[in-house]
Amino acid sequence: MQDKDIEPPLLMIPGPTPIPFNILSSLSSYPIPHRSPEFCTIIKECNEGLKKIFLTQNDVFIYASSGTGAMCAALENLINPNDKVLCLVIGNFGARFEKIAKGRGGDVDVLRVGYGEVIEPQELESMMAKKSYKLVTLTHSETSSGAANDIKTLCGIIKKYGALSIVDGITSLCAMECKMDEWGIDVLISGSQKGFMLPPGLAFLAASNKAIEESKKTLYKSFYFDFLAYKQALSKNTTPYTPAINLIFGLHCALKELLKYGIKDLNAAHKHRALALREALRAMGLKLLVEDDNKASYAVTAVYPPQGLSIKDIRAGLKKRNIIIANGQGELEDKIFRIGTLGYIRDEDLIKTISVLEMVLRELGYELSPNVGLNALKGRLK
Amino acid sequence: MQDKDIEPPLLMIPGPTPIPFNILSSLSSYPIPHRSPEFCTIIKECNEGLKKIFLTQNDVFIYASSGTGAMCAALENLINPNDKVLCLVIGNFGARFEKIAKGRGGDVDVLRVGYGEVIEPQELESMMAKKSYKLVTLTHSETSSGAANDIKTLCGIIKKYGALSIVDGITSLCAMECKMDEWGIDVLISGSQKGFMLPPGLAFLAASNKAIEESKKTLYKSFYFDFLAYKQALSKNTTPYTPAINLIFGLHCALKELLKYGIKDLNAAHKHRALALREALRAMGLKLLVEDDNKASYAVTAVYPPQGLSIKDIRAGLKKRNIIIANGQGELEDKIFRIGTLGYIRDEDLIKTISVLEMVLRELGYELSPNVGLNALKGRLK
Repeated sequence: MQDKDIEPPLLMIPGPTPIPFNILSSLSSYPIPHRSPEFCTIIKECNEGLKKIFLTQNDVFIYASSGTGAMCAALENLINPNDKVLCLVIGNFGARFEKIAKGRGGDVDVLRVGYGEVIEPQELESMMAKKSYKLVTLTHSETSSGAANDIKTLCGIIKKYGALSIVDGITSLCAMECKMDEWGIDVLISGSQKGFMLPPGLAFLAASNKAIEESKKTLYKSFYFDFLAYKQALSKNTTPYTPAINLIFGLHCALKELLKYGIKDLNAAHKHRALALREALRAMGLKLLVEDDNKASYAVTAVYPPQGLSIKDIRAGLKKRNIIIANGQGELEDKIFRIGTLGYIRDEDLIKTISVLEMVLRELGYELSPNVGLNALKGRLK
Repeated sequence: MQDKDIEPPLLMIPGPTPIPFNILSSLSSYPIPHRSPEFCTIIKECNEGLKKIFLTQNDVFIYASSGTGAMCAALENLINPNDKVLCLVIGNFGARFEKIAKGRGGDVDVLRVGYGEVIEPQELESMMAKKSYKLVTLTHSETSSGAANDIKTLCGIIKKYGALSIVDGITSLCAMECKMDEWGIDVLISGSQKGFMLPPGLAFLAASNKAIEESKKTLYKSFYFDFLAYKQALSKNTTPYTPAINLIFGLHCALKELLKYGIKDLNAAHKHRALALREALRAMGLKLLVEDDNKASYAVTAVYPPQGLSIKDIRAGLKKRNIIIANGQGELEDKIFRIGTLGYIRDEDLIKTISVLEMVLRELGYELSPNVGLNALKGRLK
């Protein structure tokens, strides 16, 4: 009998992420009616907990949807045909905002950089100085590349020019510092299967008063994702349509766990582990897609394989030992692999991953002094 | 210690409905990556199972959303501004289609009847003869009133005039005969927390080729709910965006249970129990909102309280004994109560409900010969 026959896989991927067993078992709680006072208390406490993660005084809407649903919610509440929109694209998920904005009939400009790069503030500034945009979309942690934008600086520029900032925080929340109110973010979204230690199926969205007011002028708004319907329902601690009751049981449980630490410590722990992983990978002679630690996501790290080795073989070697890492996406498929350090990842999970990765690379013919990655990792984790 | 301290509540409501324990515990299975071959097999088998419930050769899309999400999906894929739409409204959920259609800029006519009534075929025929509609929305089982339209006849008329029929089967599927392909339904939707014995959070939608083709011409389509994205992904046994993995584990398990019986027997069992319940309520001297069994839903039954008794007291009396029944909705709030017979309801659940209801009504001062309802119920259940 092997680990993989009896143990769940170790999900070193940027979603779904590992889930502690108490949260997992809360998903099997018997449903209660969603309009009952008991369930309203749960909704109220979830909203309060999410505000502490989002660092905002705005309500946080809970959608029964994936993160892409919340991306649509943001744009379908705010874009009228021919509205001027600027999309900052640093990878596949930034490009998804661009597609949604175009589908809504927006007049869309794009500031695009290569995989692994981030948006330079002066480039944004020069575009905004030339044209007046209603809103700007941007990604905090780009899941496809492991690069992370400097949201604080970029949103400061967007605010200076009077545009609305729409931030995809799907993989960044919990893992990276993101201060909605202090940084002046107008719409911030996230998803349950990322830093929240939950399975997919819930998306979260907080909108500033300015964004809520602006949404009142939008034509052909999505009925399902309508900001106003959720805001009004939350004033009575409920949802406008049937919520995903059992996933919300999980959220209620997960928020209690997350807030035992507090958002500052959560962010710090993710940063500490991601930087330790990066150190270990470098010590193993591997090249990272994002070289500069200051431009790197703490949720996911993209790595080039050693020359001549295939991503398929590396991933299969780890899977055989019950560790799941991700392939690249789009253009980067089979060119990089990605290691998630998001959600319920512990030091021992990183140690296991690096040990096994060293073993697999050696099996595939890559020359590596024993434990070189592991020692670097342990030195840094201390 | 009472039942209610240790047992889950008996959910005699039209959603969430009771869930067998094997399905409930499948929700706590450890997530696996949604792009893995193992998960693709699950998606494939869910699609095949759902086709057997929908009685269709069309793919059945699985959305991470509530039923309202699928209502939006139907209309946001098909309505362009100024398209001529006819909404058949027999209650609150019919009215929801009307709101969504108007929000999309449709040129909407409404054929509206009172709560408890259904659409008469000749009235639909006379409206369709006068004007050419692109699509017609209609409700199979109207959850707010417990009335059920004759979908077969109505969709026949809609087809004759060349319009698309969009059928809300949210509470009807599993509980009532609904033959998508044979009856020529163009879009049929349902939701997980109804006849499927699951918690809320998944919605299902099947679309005819005609509807899929028509969706290609739609402007400002919802990106999240886009028919074409789901159709293309299903051809590879996957979903376009992250699916609600753990709810899909539940669906996979629930479909196996449902298909042990087959759709015909499932429909028959629901009909049998709903008619027995109606017989018992009548024997207790209670007036039903929908008098005619042929116009009644088999998913939910709306009942007037005995004169002078309050809905609040009746519901509280049952809740004290751990049985949940529903209030009326909208105009009918506090005027009727509703009893669900949807999903995993067994004969003994009906027996318990009628026994306790008799007890509660007597406590509240309603004169009732002993076991009059219970005997009628048992006589009919045999």
